[in-house]
Amino acid sequence: MASLRILGLDPGLRRTGWGVIAVDGPRLSHVAHGVIAPPPDAPLAVRLMAVFEGVAEVIALHAPNEAAIEETFVSVNAASTLKLGHARAAAMIAPAKAGLEVAEYAALVVKKSVVGTGAADKAQVGYMIRRLLPSAGPTTADAADALAVAIAHAHARRTRRLGAAA
Amino acid sequence: MASLRILGLDPGLRRTGWGVIAVDGPRLSHVAHGVIAPPPDAPLAVRLMAVFEGVAEVIALHAPNEAAIEETFVSVNAASTLKLGHARAAAMIAPAKAGLEVAEYAALVVKKSVVGTGAADKAQVGYMIRRLLPSAGPTTADAADALAVAIAHAHARRTRRLGAAA
Repeated sequence: MASLRILGLDPGLRRTGWGVIAVDGPRLSHVAHGVIAPPPDAPLAVRLMAVFEGVAEVIALHAPNEAAIEETFVSVNAASTLKLGHARAAAMIAPAKAGLEVAEYAALVVKKSVVGTGAADKAQVGYMIRRLLPSAGPTTADAADALAVAIAHAHARRTRRLGAAA
Repeated sequence: MASLRILGLDPGLRRTGWGVIAVDGPRLSHVAHGVIAPPPDAPLAVRLMAVFEGVAEVIALHAPNEAAIEETFVSVNAASTLKLGHARAAAMIAPAKAGLEVAEYAALVVKKSVVGTGAADKAQVGYMIRRLLPSAGPTTADAADALAVAIAHAHARRTRRLGAAA
């Protein structure tokens, strides 16, 4: 069976992390990861375009079959919720244009899937990424979070598939 | 002097209103308006793509020189603020890709500019749109709001230009 590629996205107006993994049955492997950093002083529309175009480039280069993104945590700070929502929308459009489904996972679900507990901190997520994807090498927090979303999606789709086969 | 075309946008996930006006010195005229309605039952990424592509089509068809959009009102309901932020981001990317500046105006500023008071309701905005742009004919509330943002931008840029000339 040909391996399937999953694009994980951790959106942000300052930095949007991305990571691509390959899934071969129960085996996961690292393909690529990186960070899209829009020009910080550019107008909002230009920064959103940079996120959109950055994700489109990643898709053109690494040809993922599916995509996954964190659900936005609705915080008490409505202004930062709004900013994150803008970045998230910009990151979701390129996969949709490429015909990929974009699965959404709550941060809690991602941490539980990768670390085993929803209360995991950034260091624990980074540690598990190094264990699960040793060839990824050092990653920034944004890219590690993006790879974590991709892994969570790989776990979720495998659980669904095994459930359907049973 | 050739007339300048302004695209006004009133973003929403269910309905994104758009309106294009032409500006010739102090004279404003109606070019076109409409509503982009993404498939309501489609996944979020697909609905955002529909907003993005709808705005891109409007730009290709009506060739505006500048764009204007309402600033999102940060409401007490963080979940609806987030949804609106998603739609707004999707609507801003196409103008940025086309090289248009996207001016942002608070709803209060738009109402004050078009009706004369920031406390104006939808009916008053609709009335003033019919007076200022008689050839527009009947408009839905979303398209009227989009035309209102375009008019507010026309007023603001004229004020700036007259100020710079003085």
